[in-house]
Amino acid sequence: MVTQNEFNEAVGLTREYLQRAGIVLTPQERDRIEVADFGLGELKKTGLEIVTYVNTDRCCAKELVMFPRQTCPEHLHPPVDGEPGKEETFRCRWGVVYLYVRGEPVKEPKAAPPAGSEDHYEVFHEVVLNPGEQYTIIPGTPHWFQAGSQGAVVSEFSTRSRDEFDIFTDPRIKRAPEVEE
Amino acid sequence: MVTQNEFNEAVGLTREYLQRAGIVLTPQERDRIEVADFGLGELKKTGLEIVTYVNTDRCCAKELVMFPRQTCPEHLHPPVDGEPGKEETFRCRWGVVYLYVRGEPVKEPKAAPPAGSEDHYEVFHEVVLNPGEQYTIIPGTPHWFQAGSQGAVVSEFSTRSRDEFDIFTDPRIKRAPEVEE
Repeated sequence: MVTQNEFNEAVGLTREYLQRAGIVLTPQERDRIEVADFGLGELKKTGLEIVTYVNTDRCCAKELVMFPRQTCPEHLHPPVDGEPGKEETFRCRWGVVYLYVRGEPVKEPKAAPPAGSEDHYEVFHEVVLNPGEQYTIIPGTPHWFQAGSQGAVVSEFSTRSRDEFDIFTDPRIKRAPEVEE
Repeated sequence: MVTQNEFNEAVGLTREYLQRAGIVLTPQERDRIEVADFGLGELKKTGLEIVTYVNTDRCCAKELVMFPRQTCPEHLHPPVDGEPGKEETFRCRWGVVYLYVRGEPVKEPKAAPPAGSEDHYEVFHEVVLNPGEQYTIIPGTPHWFQAGSQGAVVSEFSTRSRDEFDIFTDPRIKRAPEVEE
């Protein structure tokens, strides 16, 4: 649950981050920034701010804004209706992102799961993305990511996005955004 | 045919335009900028500079750089191997782009086909894209576009890119790049 105040503050900050990254939005896009707290009620720790540019049956492009040390929690994109799961490329545009996928865990990770949620994070192979660096997530791969201490702006290029089918490691998570009226 | 000098100059300018648009490339990407003159040997009039970020079986993302008044000639993306043609969203990041598709021709178009190639341009419904504005091209739709007088940087989000199947209105055009050794 995001309160109206939290929502407004997050939207304002998101606009600032995008501006800092040199990314221009139309007035309509500025008015439909999505704020996702994944139902945990701790947006600054676990959350994501999203501008969806296009999302058709075949492909999708978004900008993701992350506040300092904000985490997008561990999840995967399963096959839907006989189609392979969503394929995503994350390209860092501004700041730093620490991305975690399956594989050899790094010895000294640059990010840690949000306090209190450690049990719901299982993959710790680290990929560091600085501006201009990118990584493609193969469908069905669990992954989570966290911004560095300055926050981050990340472009996501993907196949069709159907967030409602995402499978989160943390059973408490609800993907549909809820804003308190 | 692009001469080695023209190629080097175009690559240098492309890097400058991307920097102006706030877009960061890795050193590897800076070294694989594609310069397409479509075989017409008039790069500054008819051509396109391209950085491909990702191009899998399912989706593709590129940055397109266009010099002042440079034109990407009229073409369409046909179905390939039973798959619908390429679907493309063009999002202007910097400068202005004049995009032309099928439909009611505009009375006073902001761009004209390159001199000498007028016969090979057939669609004149105008879409003007300023920074932050975008347009999605439905598969099979003929389209061409030209940068304004400052040039332009355009993000392209699309399904798989297979340029070799593109159908150009101008029969003189060859899509495969040729650089003179």
